Amino acid sequence: MEDLSVGETTCDAKKKTWDVLGRDGGFHVLELPQKKGPADRTLWAGEVKAFARRIEELTGRTLTPEKLAGAVRLMNRKRRALARMHEWRKADAPPISGTDALVIMQAALIDDPARFTGRLESLNKELAVRAAAGTAALPGARKRIMVSGCPSVLGNWKLHYLLETAGVTVVLDESCTGTRYFRGEVEEMAAADPQASPGAPAAVERQLEAVAARYMGIDCSCFSPNTERTDNILRLAGEYRAEGVVQYILHACHTFNIEAITVADALKSAGIPSIRIETDYSEEDIGQLRIRLEAFLESLEFRNGA
Amino acid sequence: MEDLSVGETTCDAKKKTWDVLGRDGGFHVLELPQKKGPADRTLWAGEVKAFARRIEELTGRTLTPEKLAGAVRLMNRKRRALARMHEWRKADAPPISGTDALVIMQAALIDDPARFTGRLESLNKELAVRAAAGTAALPGARKRIMVSGCPSVLGNWKLHYLLETAGVTVVLDESCTGTRYFRGEVEEMAAADPQASPGAPAAVERQLEAVAARYMGIDCSCFSPNTERTDNILRLAGEYRAEGVVQYILHACHTFNIEAITVADALKSAGIPSIRIETDYSEEDIGQLRIRLEAFLESLEFRNGA
Repeated sequence: MEDLSVGETTCDAKKKTWDVLGRDGGFHVLELPQKKGPADRTLWAGEVKAFARRIEELTGRTLTPEKLAGAVRLMNRKRRALARMHEWRKADAPPISGTDALVIMQAALIDDPARFTGRLESLNKELAVRAAAGTAALPGARKRIMVSGCPSVLGNWKLHYLLETAGVTVVLDESCTGTRYFRGEVEEMAAADPQASPGAPAAVERQLEAVAARYMGIDCSCFSPNTERTDNILRLAGEYRAEGVVQYILHACHTFNIEAITVADALKSAGIPSIRIETDYSEEDIGQLRIRLEAFLESLEFRNGA
Repeated sequence: MEDLSVGETTCDAKKKTWDVLGRDGGFHVLELPQKKGPADRTLWAGEVKAFARRIEELTGRTLTPEKLAGAVRLMNRKRRALARMHEWRKADAPPISGTDALVIMQAALIDDPARFTGRLESLNKELAVRAAAGTAALPGARKRIMVSGCPSVLGNWKLHYLLETAGVTVVLDESCTGTRYFRGEVEEMAAADPQASPGAPAAVERQLEAVAARYMGIDCSCFSPNTERTDNILRLAGEYRAEGVVQYILHACHTFNIEAITVADALKSAGIPSIRIETDYSEEDIGQLRIRLEAFLESLEFRNGA
């Protein structure tokens, strides 16, 4: 354990693991509410502010409006670069594979934000050149597949590897290592507001509230209800012209697993076939997964060919 | 689905199941917060009041202070009768078996409160006579076992049956079909408060806040942190003189499953052996469970005899 670890209450397994890891202190738990009503937003803003105070106490440094505004601008720039990278995935022959795009999303979670964003902006220029030249990352005519559900963190690209070696292209991840990570920017506040009335919240407080508000816009399955996620999935499937959806569920993730029922029904109504894959980080089920995925992809061919 | 169903967000599996069941409306979800801070208590009180309003709208009837106070009194009387029944379980030779006590707890969840309470008060008189005569429900010298963790709802008495046919007595359930159900009464408010200042919350509002406060006192594993549960378990193990604890975990209940680590450590420090059983409502694992439980109970004999 470092000086301080931090986690949030997005799911039962994480929440209770923090209790065990934090038994001797040194763990800060942010309570993410389960609905998105006014009382929930108030509670969450309080949690974000309390975490900022904890960091200030730990480091002995004060959060300034200038530094915070700068960090918000950097993270927004990073989100825009990721969104730009995703524009190329909408092309007829995407100049980047789904597996490579996933690795970039995984790096986004751990790399230094400034360095990462600079490199990604360079990559985006390269992708523009490739797209203009019609250079596809993966050869041949390929079905377009969207992956939806749980995140795949660094080291875990099992599903994408299986799909793309089976002859399709993964055109989008609707996950926290996908659209959920970069959609929605934090509102940028001026460090000093000349029009601020006396008694108005300080600039840091207002900026922290904007940070909190951005994260309440996430359509994670931990929220109840979460109909906006189904709406977003159907919209994204249209924008990226997905011909099939793989719902990717990590073992023991009850929220995405149960929400998969609603998502599958919505996709079916929209005429988009889907399959639900429940797996984990191990490699032991690769053989079984390959058989199931190939059967699903074959049904897509049959569907179009019939 | 009836006119209205109701559920709460105690765990991921329930929360997301309500989303699916409530897709066509007719489902009210109470958001139970995950911590017990001031903002959580405010949020929860709001949820209880919103539910009361929903019931009023559905039924077209208004909740009166008199009716609400009467219901609170009845439920408190029921809790006291259950607590009284549990006093007999502390005896050297309890006049009621753990399996019978569990069935009574299960009935408490579904029977008419007034009828149930009346019958239980009669049973308590009978138990007093049996206790005075030294009549044990189960014959012979028996180890005293406490069951801790998930609830066992009606139809599910597999664990208690296995334990008591293996020669021990279950002296307590630390669960929602046990102590969590009856511990802590709702503060009783006068329907009309002659000293109420102008502008004070109405009697119904104050009573609803007292109802909300009682439920925030529950030490369910859904809360983070939940150190009060460990404290309560050690206290109860002492009061009921438990010689061993069976942690009963229903499949997929992450919160009790992970909290079992902390509970087992606390029991070990207190010198009380424990075992963790993960099971479900099926009967298919009875053979395996019997072998594991008998091995655990044998280790208790060895421990005392050595």
